[in-house]
Amino acid sequence: MDSRPIGIFDSGVGGLTVVSQIQQILPKEGIVYFGDTARVPYGTKSKETVTKFSVENVEFLMRHDVKLVVVACNTVSSLSLDFLKRCFRVPMIGVIEPGAKSAVSSSRNSRIGVIGTQATISSGAYEKAISKISSRSRVFTQSCPLFVPLVEEGWTDMHIAFDVASIYLKPLKAKRIDTLILGCTHYPLLKAMIGKAMGPRVLLIDSAQEVSKEAKDVLDASGLLNKSGQSRAHKFFVSDEVNRFIKMGEKFLRKRITCVRRA
Amino acid sequence: MDSRPIGIFDSGVGGLTVVSQIQQILPKEGIVYFGDTARVPYGTKSKETVTKFSVENVEFLMRHDVKLVVVACNTVSSLSLDFLKRCFRVPMIGVIEPGAKSAVSSSRNSRIGVIGTQATISSGAYEKAISKISSRSRVFTQSCPLFVPLVEEGWTDMHIAFDVASIYLKPLKAKRIDTLILGCTHYPLLKAMIGKAMGPRVLLIDSAQEVSKEAKDVLDASGLLNKSGQSRAHKFFVSDEVNRFIKMGEKFLRKRITCVRRA
Repeated sequence: MDSRPIGIFDSGVGGLTVVSQIQQILPKEGIVYFGDTARVPYGTKSKETVTKFSVENVEFLMRHDVKLVVVACNTVSSLSLDFLKRCFRVPMIGVIEPGAKSAVSSSRNSRIGVIGTQATISSGAYEKAISKISSRSRVFTQSCPLFVPLVEEGWTDMHIAFDVASIYLKPLKAKRIDTLILGCTHYPLLKAMIGKAMGPRVLLIDSAQEVSKEAKDVLDASGLLNKSGQSRAHKFFVSDEVNRFIKMGEKFLRKRITCVRRA
Repeated sequence: MDSRPIGIFDSGVGGLTVVSQIQQILPKEGIVYFGDTARVPYGTKSKETVTKFSVENVEFLMRHDVKLVVVACNTVSSLSLDFLKRCFRVPMIGVIEPGAKSAVSSSRNSRIGVIGTQATISSGAYEKAISKISSRSRVFTQSCPLFVPLVEEGWTDMHIAFDVASIYLKPLKAKRIDTLILGCTHYPLLKAMIGKAMGPRVLLIDSAQEVSKEAKDVLDASGLLNKSGQSRAHKFFVSDEVNRFIKMGEKFLRKRITCVRRA
């Protein structure tokens, strides 16, 4: 039993979809969240730059004595997780493997689609993770650079979101996938439009849900769950100003955010 | 007469529209360009963060012994130019005032529109600059956060670009402006769609053109023009990887980019 908090970081607000799921699955755990809002986004940047920023982010979380680091960003999980695991001793999980596992066990025709940022898609991280689990699965990928700005503009319910989704997803539809991994923490907010564009027979996999189950399993297996009677506090830190993070972040967390400080 | 280069910086590739104009107007001048591609974009970030990054960018240019600094980024010009001018002794110009001047002298009904990033628009910098020149001008503003990602995705000629432009520009159209300042260096690449959405009677002002004329005037007035027979070299530096900058940048510069290095 261990009452130290779980550390979670992302390039900005997107990782709050992971916080939201972890709060549901592990309601007693404390959370320290870091969003690198001064340098967001990561998804258009190089492996070297993303890794450099991520090392700094983990160092920040380590100063808050976290017992587990959850890399809530698909781009970081794709490009930098192996390096981070070699640099730090703390247990660390990313969003790629849990999403890949869930997709493989859900797909009936073994034709899996993956959407994400340019960096995530061109890294090939999901293909690698899926092929490790199931050699017969075929993976089809598509980067969707306009999805994040559409979500941040709050246009998720507008017809234009459906038009953009239709353009990006047309090639995946043609590949007759039956399972689609939402490989970016912003994408669950576009779930309705993505679902409409793909049709009702395609299952959408939300990485945030999957990594939260993984976090629970890891803590449980290592005897690190907080089994005290008390729920622990949640703290949020950002590298740019607090107000914009709160305004945007409440859409992702689907509840009020308090206790945000500038790191 | 002074053969030192002109320093130009931007948050990323957008400032290359300014480089392109300066190359045309001042073909003999050397240029050192810095694009902060590791931390791009600035337009969604706070004044404090944008100013901090900008000071570092000017320091970088100063190490290359530049005779003039052109702030090619509307966001930095809006939020941080006054501070930068106080910090550094080098002559420095931004894109706001030249654009404002041109708009005031072009408008016949004194109803001027301004579009830009969230940071540029909420700073009120264009309103201030215009009211200094002409107290009777009325200014109407609109931030257009999806324009930059649309340009970077290369969707400038697609119908979706027109749809997005129509949504953003509808309120400005209703205000019967006759002049519209394109207050972001990416927007000239959407000129056709913005023009189509606004209609043929609205004049579009391109800040890049205006600041280039200003650069020539400043150098001329201070005796800093390069009057030697030889044209000087152009050097490009970026904070993230070179290849993505070149690929995207050639669309903005409308010619091949060579001699790019990581800063």
